[in-house]
Amino acid sequence: MVSENGAVNEDLVKERQNCSFNTLELTHLLDGGEAKTLERKEREEYFLSDPAFKDEVPMEYLSHQEQYEHSVRKACHMFRKLQEMPHGSMDNFREPPVESVAQRIKQLLGGMLGSAILKDGNPLALHYVMFLPTLAGQGTVEQQAYWISRAWNLEIVGTYAQTELGHGTFIRGLETTATYDPSTQEFVLNSPTLTAYKWWPGGLGHTANYAVVVAQLYTQGKCHGIHPFIVQLRDEETHMPMPGIIIGEIGAKLGMNTTNNGYLGFKQVRIPRENMLMKNNKVLEDGTYVKSPSDKLTYGTMMFVRVVICQDMASYLSKAVTIATRYSAVRHQSEMKPGAPEPQVLDYRTQQYKLLPSIASVFAMKFSANWIWEMYNVVNSELDQGDLERLPELHAVSCCLKALCTSDAASAVEIVRLACGGHGYMKSSNLPSTYGLVTAACTYEGENTVLLLQTARYLMKTWQQARSGQTLTPSVAYLNLYSDWRQPRTVWENTTDCVIKAFYQVAAGKVKAAAEHMERRAKGGMTPEDAWNETSIELVAASTAHCRAFIVEKFIETVSKTDVSRPLQAVLCQMAELYAVYWLLNNKGDFLMFSNLSPADVDGLQLWLEQLLTKLRPNAVGIVDSFDIHDDILASPLGAWDGRVYERLFEESQKSPLNKEPVNKSFHEYMKPFLRSNL
Amino acid sequence: MVSENGAVNEDLVKERQNCSFNTLELTHLLDGGEAKTLERKEREEYFLSDPAFKDEVPMEYLSHQEQYEHSVRKACHMFRKLQEMPHGSMDNFREPPVESVAQRIKQLLGGMLGSAILKDGNPLALHYVMFLPTLAGQGTVEQQAYWISRAWNLEIVGTYAQTELGHGTFIRGLETTATYDPSTQEFVLNSPTLTAYKWWPGGLGHTANYAVVVAQLYTQGKCHGIHPFIVQLRDEETHMPMPGIIIGEIGAKLGMNTTNNGYLGFKQVRIPRENMLMKNNKVLEDGTYVKSPSDKLTYGTMMFVRVVICQDMASYLSKAVTIATRYSAVRHQSEMKPGAPEPQVLDYRTQQYKLLPSIASVFAMKFSANWIWEMYNVVNSELDQGDLERLPELHAVSCCLKALCTSDAASAVEIVRLACGGHGYMKSSNLPSTYGLVTAACTYEGENTVLLLQTARYLMKTWQQARSGQTLTPSVAYLNLYSDWRQPRTVWENTTDCVIKAFYQVAAGKVKAAAEHMERRAKGGMTPEDAWNETSIELVAASTAHCRAFIVEKFIETVSKTDVSRPLQAVLCQMAELYAVYWLLNNKGDFLMFSNLSPADVDGLQLWLEQLLTKLRPNAVGIVDSFDIHDDILASPLGAWDGRVYERLFEESQKSPLNKEPVNKSFHEYMKPFLRSNL
Repeated sequence: MVSENGAVNEDLVKERQNCSFNTLELTHLLDGGEAKTLERKEREEYFLSDPAFKDEVPMEYLSHQEQYEHSVRKACHMFRKLQEMPHGSMDNFREPPVESVAQRIKQLLGGMLGSAILKDGNPLALHYVMFLPTLAGQGTVEQQAYWISRAWNLEIVGTYAQTELGHGTFIRGLETTATYDPSTQEFVLNSPTLTAYKWWPGGLGHTANYAVVVAQLYTQGKCHGIHPFIVQLRDEETHMPMPGIIIGEIGAKLGMNTTNNGYLGFKQVRIPRENMLMKNNKVLEDGTYVKSPSDKLTYGTMMFVRVVICQDMASYLSKAVTIATRYSAVRHQSEMKPGAPEPQVLDYRTQQYKLLPSIASVFAMKFSANWIWEMYNVVNSELDQGDLERLPELHAVSCCLKALCTSDAASAVEIVRLACGGHGYMKSSNLPSTYGLVTAACTYEGENTVLLLQTARYLMKTWQQARSGQTLTPSVAYLNLYSDWRQPRTVWENTTDCVIKAFYQVAAGKVKAAAEHMERRAKGGMTPEDAWNETSIELVAASTAHCRAFIVEKFIETVSKTDVSRPLQAVLCQMAELYAVYWLLNNKGDFLMFSNLSPADVDGLQLWLEQLLTKLRPNAVGIVDSFDIHDDILASPLGAWDGRVYERLFEESQKSPLNKEPVNKSFHEYMKPFLRSNL
Repeated sequence: MVSENGAVNEDLVKERQNCSFNTLELTHLLDGGEAKTLERKEREEYFLSDPAFKDEVPMEYLSHQEQYEHSVRKACHMFRKLQEMPHGSMDNFREPPVESVAQRIKQLLGGMLGSAILKDGNPLALHYVMFLPTLAGQGTVEQQAYWISRAWNLEIVGTYAQTELGHGTFIRGLETTATYDPSTQEFVLNSPTLTAYKWWPGGLGHTANYAVVVAQLYTQGKCHGIHPFIVQLRDEETHMPMPGIIIGEIGAKLGMNTTNNGYLGFKQVRIPRENMLMKNNKVLEDGTYVKSPSDKLTYGTMMFVRVVICQDMASYLSKAVTIATRYSAVRHQSEMKPGAPEPQVLDYRTQQYKLLPSIASVFAMKFSANWIWEMYNVVNSELDQGDLERLPELHAVSCCLKALCTSDAASAVEIVRLACGGHGYMKSSNLPSTYGLVTAACTYEGENTVLLLQTARYLMKTWQQARSGQTLTPSVAYLNLYSDWRQPRTVWENTTDCVIKAFYQVAAGKVKAAAEHMERRAKGGMTPEDAWNETSIELVAASTAHCRAFIVEKFIETVSKTDVSRPLQAVLCQMAELYAVYWLLNNKGDFLMFSNLSPADVDGLQLWLEQLLTKLRPNAVGIVDSFDIHDDILASPLGAWDGRVYERLFEESQKSPLNKEPVNKSFHEYMKPFLRSNL
């Protein structure tokens, strides 16, 4: 079963021969065209061939401190290379709009390539992802001229400090204060309590020397809510913390251990008045507060971050399914038929059921992220015309999509990791650290339950509008159609049209149920807030159903209108159907209640699912091959292109420092004295 | 909100005042009586007060190698203390039966206490958990006399080597060979391929000097299948690997990084004939193979291990929910009502929905583990009378129970970890390493999908028996009752009787569906093996439903017959109902299809669930307090008894070595030169 040194595993060779479509065609489709594929591969080559990024000893064997030191070395080298890059250098991207700059950085270094170089987080990442966009989005023209130039050139390193030890989601509750002193024209930053300490910002611990700090602004004896301030944290020469700055890292985490997440306390730290970012609101020299009505740009950054998260989730999951699928083609296990050789585990129906819906999820996330990005651009141009109508809709869609992409990705990564058996538990498989990155996203940039409840608030409002006969915006137009879902049942058909309709009927049914139960509670004498809270399990479920419905719809729509060869089209349609039927069967109770599905139809759906697994099985390796993920990005003995799983697992084990000596000193120090004493 | 140094957090004080039952009564119930509680607390004090177990620097900051060295030091000290223990010393437990010995060790050091001392695994654990029981279970009287004595006294350290790099679940596929050479009366052990290398055994890497090795026995030119052999791995004096032994650790893992999991290859290693464990089968001096019919004791060890796993899962989950529940009482977040103070997150319905069903799961697992252990003892005494009738039933129950307890525990730990927001991502919260321990159990000792399919095989057989009118053994008797589940529907009632019946109707319905679909495939011309494989998604679902039904039934039965005070009884009944209704609603499609639940009843069930959450909310802290988990075992700033969450989080961060210096050397080495070059 094991291939010769250097040769490709024979099972993988066969899988690739049996693939029914052109994998390169799919690669180009996913990259956005052949030129983009080539550009990506050049970029990967430029970075990944650099020996400075290779670890002699894998990071997981080093101490926490050593890991940090290596990550600083690599991050500096990475940004140096970015500055020196022959094509696509940073020079063209020094000007706002922020989103396009940030997206360009993202494209160059984010997601998969970045995580190949710094598998467990980049201590300089927030400089680009948050510090620069905030300067650009919230600074005045003068502030941008000075600070953005210093930041772009990497003369200074910044981060973004908002979350506090005692305050996350609810930013109005932040405790850090910035009190204006007109006598010196300075703001005084202070942490009144321990829970006011900033906690979590990446790079804050020991890396950044500046930060945008979000604090409650006090001037002329009045609090004006939270505002952003540029604060110098460390001396530019010595890197010593500035006076009054209490700073360090928050400690080891489940993952992302080289992001250097930090804490930050203020003891009456004075900064010049000019360090308040004043694009929107201002404090004049005498302390007068001047409020601006617009906060559009802040909104844009948030939207951008959520789209990036959905793209990241698709990337991480594509990595995980590539690893698990190739491994499942190489791994043989058990006896299916007496006396026959052990089959590839990919031939087990239960294994297909773990892998193929997870592969389909990658496409679902990619297509949804593309769609919401297009929607954002449309809404954005409407905004420029002063039309704010679709802003709440966009907000509602981005909230639930972020929640579903992150939680789906986290479940799927664990499902496919467990599908690799014990070997998926090895750090070298790269699946554990992928999970660490993915599960973190369920919490950051809006905790998922909180986000789903934000979408629910929008749904409850639009439901009332639907009931009063108003015509709704596109993403909720189904509430007009199905506002009375107790319509005469039609016959169920195993077609995508019927399925899409059913998903929307379920969403409408659950929105309606939540709305009615909330009303019932309000009529029973509860305050609206209590009624909301008591109904919140159903509100979360309604948001989830709403989001699932449009992911399903966009997936099916996208693959049906994509201009590709017929063999590829067939595979993409099977993927979309699998995604839909999988989620339908996993929530069949809702469909039995709210759609025209009846119990007698369920067997047929199960069969449809199984037939899709059978059809997709021969293309499983081909599909993950199309993701075209460089071996150095996969970074997994289970997932490498050549399928030399066992040889690579063994080679990885040899990198453990414990294996460099036949006898560890603990034997002589502890064990031998103990064993001898028992003789 | 933050308490004075040393005082208990005021929210927790209030929660404890509002608890409606006597927490000590529940503690005694869970421990098995007041005397056992006292014994446990003495034992905890004896071990946990020892300064040798305290880490100056938390293990997560050390290198992999340093972590191993500390774990050997601690493990030796732990076993030394065990030998010197005033009460309950090892002396009384040197004789078989293996199960009672192993259980005693388990009781003394397993689960929670062991994981408090060695949070990420014990490199000596397999010596007690597998090496000793195997010697006792499979050795002849002479072999026991010699080897057990050496092992009990800890003159030697052993492990158990079965799994290979290329072979896990399917042990008949193991490749390691043991070929008998009558000319020297030795076995020759050999690894014919890389995939034949032993891979995974705990302590194998650098700790054990002996192992029981499972290998294919060849004698007189014939293979007799797998058998156990005692092999010396390392010299007792020098600890150097013995000739022909290729040995080391397999590398870093998602968790359990101090268990020292190892690999082991053989190059024609010779061992005396007497080193084959011959209680069951023998090889005579001339090479004649003598087979024994009995393998009862092997069976006992396996059963014991599965019960222990279920108990462990309950323990780990009780730790996780204690941490998350206390944190949720201390943490305040967001505005429920405009202008009102931020409420405790425990007051959010969605938070209750994450915590309380997870707390209920702890009880469900404990009670099911107790029940299966009683069943094992009954079946065991029947076996002594030669009655093997209930053996398959016991096997079927133990397989699916192990699968559900581990996968439920893994999901629940992640749900409550995520319910702690960002702070649950901190290693110091102890939730990440708890997940690492729990998710590992989904794979080891029988991969969950494989185990569920084993139960399914039993269910398919009993289904045929039910259909042919045979009376079935107790755990599957419901198949007799509901073999035709299209019975006239009765009216649904929100009562536990109706609920239990519905769970069994669902199980029967799913068993029947899987059986019929398999038959349909066989009739269509498929081989039985292919039909089995094609139906396996539904077979897994049938096993799961079967297992869930009896967990629900045993939970409700246990709490209704437990002799406790009325206030405690009320809480236990609410827990059991919550568990049942939670799982019912999460699978409501099955209930709509197979039980007398109709769509109109679902709202009522949702309300029942919500009312249970409301009733249990005031007792949430009281219930987890009753688990009575020592602060050193919880080992979490989020979960300590005093609720000083933020102070403790900050104190933990101060233990990071990176925080011992204001400026890390990487600034001068890498960052400053880079930043300067950009000026």
